[in-house]
Amino acid sequence: MRIPNHIGIIPDGNRRWATRAGLAKKDGYIHGLTPGLDLLRLAWEAGVREITYYGFTTDNCKRPPEQVFAFSKACVEAIRRIASEPVSLLVLGDQNSSVFPEELRPYTVRTDLNGGGMRVNFLVNYGWEWDLAELNAPGSNRRQICNALRSHDISRVDLVIRWGGMRRLSGFLPVQSVYADFFVVDRLWPDFQPDDFFQALQWYQAQDVTLGG
Amino acid sequence: MRIPNHIGIIPDGNRRWATRAGLAKKDGYIHGLTPGLDLLRLAWEAGVREITYYGFTTDNCKRPPEQVFAFSKACVEAIRRIASEPVSLLVLGDQNSSVFPEELRPYTVRTDLNGGGMRVNFLVNYGWEWDLAELNAPGSNRRQICNALRSHDISRVDLVIRWGGMRRLSGFLPVQSVYADFFVVDRLWPDFQPDDFFQALQWYQAQDVTLGG
Repeated sequence: MRIPNHIGIIPDGNRRWATRAGLAKKDGYIHGLTPGLDLLRLAWEAGVREITYYGFTTDNCKRPPEQVFAFSKACVEAIRRIASEPVSLLVLGDQNSSVFPEELRPYTVRTDLNGGGMRVNFLVNYGWEWDLAELNAPGSNRRQICNALRSHDISRVDLVIRWGGMRRLSGFLPVQSVYADFFVVDRLWPDFQPDDFFQALQWYQAQDVTLGG
Repeated sequence: MRIPNHIGIIPDGNRRWATRAGLAKKDGYIHGLTPGLDLLRLAWEAGVREITYYGFTTDNCKRPPEQVFAFSKACVEAIRRIASEPVSLLVLGDQNSSVFPEELRPYTVRTDLNGGGMRVNFLVNYGWEWDLAELNAPGSNRRQICNALRSHDISRVDLVIRWGGMRRLSGFLPVQSVYADFFVVDRLWPDFQPDDFFQALQWYQAQDVTLGG
């Protein structure tokens, strides 16, 4: 079976899930924690070598403060759980902001935990413009451009899986995702099922990797 | 009806179409010309203000020479037909290469034709890395980054429509497409039907524009 080296995860639909469950929007995020860890283990078992979670973005922080507080707290808790697994963890995003959680600073340098393992990247207060902001006339060399990104320690994404039915990247790693295959799950993220992941892998088998050539 | 301001067009599947029709792969491209002009007129009638066609990329030029010659020729002919419409035309791509067709040089500066009209952009020998290559430490300001792109005269894309069933951007305007909704048509491009476009518009109605906020 052809397994993507690196998958990107857009765990969307937490607020819609909360509304449908009769909860306040902010109360959806906490229900995305267990799916996050379940998916991590499934990906690891399948042989995926790198996974990037779209935590929250600088744009997301324009939302009502109680939602910002809630998704920030959920990210911290998600990363706390991931950090108890055998992973090589990187938290990436704009740290020069009060919304960046202090507890995550130790992981802004890639850290092997519990002996190391799958590369796990978690985007926290990430912005595509923040990511590109240090590109300094690198020329057309692809490797030089990638090395000049703030996300230079995150490799090319082979497969992006988005939950919640929307079909857009929403600023997710625009350079690493230029050739990514994009699989959309209609189910909302807190309703994650292992089969969502298996269907994405199955679909990925049928895609060809040409990189434009 | 909510109409996208700017649509991106990825006209994929010409080679597969040729193979199914019993032709050589290179002979597919010419069958994409009529669809291109039909779509242009439909988009104009619908009130779309800007359209960008993915002609060919620097990566595509790694293909066999007879294919490169064929898609290059098809692009020149497509642009010749578009240039007889009332449009504001821009051809954008790496001109410092022998594969860039000489006939297209006059349009590498935006040109009003037949009184001007819809903004039509045609990417010819485009590469995402070429597009980013002049970014000179612009900082995190979104407008400054967009202005520093080589594609600075192409605005944010609201809707990308890709024919041929593949679900990836393949390097198409990575910065302008960060928030684009992505609609995939399984039909191969030479088999384009007006209904493909109408279905994309219909689907677009159901998408919300949050830009992450």
